[in-house]
Parts: sequence; structure tokens; C-alpha cells
Amino acid sequence: MRKIINDPEMVVDESVQGFLKAHSGLVEASDNPRVLVSKNAAQPGRVGIVTGGGSGHKPAFIGYIGENMLDAVAVGEVFSSPPAQAFFDAIKSADSGNGVACLYGNYAGDKMNMKMAEKMAADAGIKVKSVIANDDAASAPADQPNKRRGVAGEIFMWKVAGAASAKGYNLEEVVSAAQKAIDNTRSVGVGLSSCTLPQLGHPNFDIEEGKMEFGIGHHGEPGIEITDLESAKIIAERMCSTVIEDLPFNSGDDVAVIVSGLGATPLQELYILFNEISGILELSEINIHTSLVGNYFTSLEMQGATFTIMRLDSEMKELLSFPARSPGLIVTGG
Amino acid sequence: MRKIINDPEMVVDESVQGFLKAHSGLVEASDNPRVLVSKNAAQPGRVGIVTGGGSGHKPAFIGYIGENMLDAVAVGEVFSSPPAQAFFDAIKSADSGNGVACLYGNYAGDKMNMKMAEKMAADAGIKVKSVIANDDAASAPADQPNKRRGVAGEIFMWKVAGAASAKGYNLEEVVSAAQKAIDNTRSVGVGLSSCTLPQLGHPNFDIEEGKMEFGIGHHGEPGIEITDLESAKIIAERMCSTVIEDLPFNSGDDVAVIVSGLGATPLQELYILFNEISGILELSEINIHTSLVGNYFTSLEMQGATFTIMRLDSEMKELLSFPARSPGLIVTGG
Repeated sequence: MRKIINDPEMVVDESVQGFLKAHSGLVEASDNPRVLVSKNAAQPGRVGIVTGGGSGHKPAFIGYIGENMLDAVAVGEVFSSPPAQAFFDAIKSADSGNGVACLYGNYAGDKMNMKMAEKMAADAGIKVKSVIANDDAASAPADQPNKRRGVAGEIFMWKVAGAASAKGYNLEEVVSAAQKAIDNTRSVGVGLSSCTLPQLGHPNFDIEEGKMEFGIGHHGEPGIEITDLESAKIIAERMCSTVIEDLPFNSGDDVAVIVSGLGATPLQELYILFNEISGILELSEINIHTSLVGNYFTSLEMQGATFTIMRLDSEMKELLSFPARSPGLIVTGG
Repeated sequence: MRKIINDPEMVVDESVQGFLKAHSGLVEASDNPRVLVSKNAAQPGRVGIVTGGGSGHKPAFIGYIGENMLDAVAVGEVFSSPPAQAFFDAIKSADSGNGVACLYGNYAGDKMNMKMAEKMAADAGIKVKSVIANDDAASAPADQPNKRRGVAGEIFMWKVAGAASAKGYNLEEVVSAAQKAIDNTRSVGVGLSSCTLPQLGHPNFDIEEGKMEFGIGHHGEPGIEITDLESAKIIAERMCSTVIEDLPFNSGDDVAVIVSGLGATPLQELYILFNEISGILELSEINIHTSLVGNYFTSLEMQGATFTIMRLDSEMKELLSFPARSPGLIVTGG
């Protein structure tokens, strides 16, 4: 195992401590060591924005806490859901009396625990509404959207919701904007290597050198197919056809795009992949309005990349370009 | 080779194309395909800020082009210096008649080519002054500073110089600020795995699993020692003692810190390492004023991390916190 860690059991706690020290201007600890809170959380008049999930995906999830982004995040063990109490504590931290939007990914553990937390919140008199992200087009057929996982599209969902809250949307309106964001978003991933959970000490699955797993999930969930490693051009074509046909995206659409590394793929390769993707979108007369290329939603030290694309109307454009500041994403007004 | 690329010979060109598409609001192409230029370059009254170097270190070098940062960058092949003509073209693009500060790393190829470019610039009537970064404390003994390599400390040097130029410093003053920045900066790296040059197709050196190379350079230059892989705590202690004793940094100093991944080390581990480093600095009564944790200066998909620390006076604090916007680093006014 090639990792810069101390005790494998302490990986999450110690990385959270380091994160808090590095970003003390934006994020603070709470009474629950597995709940981090924005210094801007629970502002009067604002709807709280909460998420949570397993660790190992940094900057997701805690890296999107900040100004006009997430207000509070429940932190799980590596690749494992936070407990209901952490979700509930995050909800409490984010509430200013205007209710809380819980915007998280479609994973069994997260769903079960968040639903319990929502019940606890309701009992405590906190208004809560949820959106469950399911942007991973490779994770189930189009006619089974409830079986699809949430991946990097969640970043757009959080960005949209944070801006909506800052602009004074009420809870129903924030949730409606977040739902619109994720409904118009599709993602797909490709893995070139596995990753090692610190507590396990060895990879929990394998991708042979020279092979790729198309459609792989953020925790190594099986993809659609394992093939020989293709060129960036072929990978881009396959990624584009998977997501474009799924929504479908059409000629004339304006879109936002994320090409994210899975943790161990150099930025150089992500730009090559983005170059191919943007060429294909241009040929399809789909206009890239906003693009993010980098490590935005990772899977420990997995090699590979994900492609996320979101169709934009004027509201989504306005909310995506609204200023925001978080460790993982800064949008400036200019 | 696990890489998302097309033709290995086209890696630099295609990644530059993708980069330009992704960051068209900040950076533009020039007549020389290996020179990228800030949309803010050559503003009247400003000193131009130029660097250049081999590819494979993204976001360095082109990722630091932007507002109040680098004005133009010469792009080399992977791990290989750009030609003199590219450096010269970058200098020309950055000059508004107020001269150009060339701020680059202490590598034989870069030095040779930049010196030729400076001569070409002088012949063309462009005022040029240089600072050669040598922050890597592990690359040569303290009494041989001219043999030390420049690494992630260059980011602080560029940030300081970009802000100085924006604040109206003249060429001598910009160069003096940049020199002060790098003179007060020390770095050290640790490698856990090798990396593969796309054109070679296999790693050009090896680090056995379970081992680490302390003091490794950004191109796999041999470090001080290969040992068993230590804990984050021990790595942090060794990194701190290497850099703290070298300047030396003293109790009461205010510092800026970068903990950068080398390309394939998850952010989670960088935060664990930063947590240990900040604990040690706190015990030494060295105050972290600014910190960056992430992939700021990489070596393809090498596993490992670098630690950079810069002593700050009031001028350096002001220049580091001056607003700037580039793909790799955004500093907001707030």
C-alpha cells in the first residue's frame, strides 16, 4: 500500500482535521466530529444546503462547503455512509428556520440514513426536503432512473442550490432548482486502475494494465464493460454517446461540463480528454457554457476520469455563474 | 501504460488545446503554439511576468497564467525545456514597454534557453531581468544554493511578482520582490512511486512498493535516501526538519505553506500530511498565515507529496493575499 497515512483507522479523522486547519476561513468543526459546517451556515432568511457521504472522494463532499455552496456535510468512513445522527446534526447546523435542502447521492446507505435523519428533523420541527442525485447514466438503464447512482453531477446540483438559497429562493424553490439541475445532468466514468481502502490494505477489485472499465462507479461498482484501453478520442466518443443519447442533449443546447479525474490521473490527460469531448460537442452543435477540468470528485487513487454534462436554461446559467467560494470550487463574479 | 491519451507524441499539443478551451476566459493562444498568454498580458504600465518549463507538472506552469499572475508561459515537451524561441516569444507577448521579469526554475535546459531568450530580448530592446528559483532544500547542500532546483516555491514567487506588477512596482522592484519570495522559501519532496513519460511508455525509474524516496525531484531526480515508507507523522517531521533548519525558520515567523500532491496521491492523504505539518509548526511557534493543500505542482502520475514553506514579512503577506485569478489558483479579495 502506497499511502501517506498514520493509523488506517484514523484516516478520516486526521484528514478532516487537516482540512479544517487548511480552510479555517470557510469551514468549521461542530460538536459532532463527523459534521463540518460552513462559516456562512444558517444565515437568516436562507435555506440550508446539506449533503453527506462516504470519504475518499475529495474535494467531494466537504470541499464544497463554503459561501453560497454547501452549509453542512455529514462525513462517513471511506466509501461508507455517515450515520443518521451525522446527517441530522448537519441538518440542524444548516437550519435558520427556513428549512433545509438535503441533496445527496443515490446510494442505499446514504438513503437509509438520510431518511432517518429527515424523520428526526421533522420531529424536531425542521422543514426538510430532499433531492437524490442519479446522474450516472452508466449505472442503470434510462427507464430505471431510481437505480442510477449520483456522481459528479452532484457538484452542479449543490452549486445551483447554494446560489438559489443565496438569491432568496424558499425551500420548495431551492429543491425544485436542485431537482432541475440533476434531472438535466448525465455522467459516465471510465476506470483504468483500482484503488485501495486504507483499512483493507489491498485493492478490492482489479483492472489489468492495458484494460479499462467503462461505466465504472465511484466505489469501483462494476461498469458496463471491460475492454482494451482505448485512445482518448475513442473514450470521449463513447462517453459522449452514452450521455448525449440518454437525456438526450440536442443541437443548440447550452451545457456545463465537468471532466474530473478519479484521483490518480494527471491533469494533462484530463485536458486531452476534454479536448476530444469539446470537439465532439462542437460537431453536435452543443455549446459549452461552463467547464471544469480537474480533480472535482475522486475515488481515492483510482486512475480514470468521469464526464458530466448538464443542460442549461437561463435560470441554471444564472445560478451556476453566481459567485461562490469553497475549497473545491470558486466562482468569481467577473 | 495506463494513460488517457492519443498519440504519445501529441500529448503536449493536445493537452494545451484542451487547456485553452477550458480556460478561454483567462488564457489565449499565440502565434507560437508553445506559448500561452494571459488575456490580461501586456497591460500599459505593468511589468510582464513570464515563466516556462517542461510539461507534466500541471497546473504548473500554464495553470498559473491569469489576472495578476503569469502573463505568458513557454511550454516544453514532457519533462523537457522549451526552446529559446518559445521563451523569447513569451517575453515579447508579456512586454508592454515596462520590461519583463523571467521567473523560472534552476534546471540546466531552462537556464540555457532562457538566457538565450534574454539576449534575443535585449537585442530587440526589451528590458528583461530574471530570478532563478532554487527552493528545493533536498537537492543540494545549503552552501551550494546555485545547485538547488526550483519546485513548488515558484508558485509563491509568481504570485508575489504578479501582485507586485499589478500594484505598479517597476521591473527592478518586481524582480526584487520575486527574489525575496524565493530566498525565503524552502521545499522538500517525497516520492512513493515513479511515473511514465508518455513517449517512453514505461517508468524511467522505480520506487518499490513499501519504500519512499525522500528528497526526490520533480522529474524523479534522485533524492537523499530511499527508506521504508514511513507514517505521515514521520514524513512530516523529516520534511519539517529539512526545511526549517535550512533557512532557518524561527519561532514567531509567519509563513505560507503548500502541501502539493505529485499527481496520484489523494487529497485525503495530503490533508493528513498537512495536519501533521501544521502540528509541528505550531509546536515550533511558526504561524501559518496562508496554506494551500492540493495538486499545485505535480509530476505526471507520481505518488508522493511536496512541502513548501515561505517566511513572510508584511510586504510578502500583502502580495500573497492580493487578488488573483488563474486556472490553478484563485485568491479572492475577501
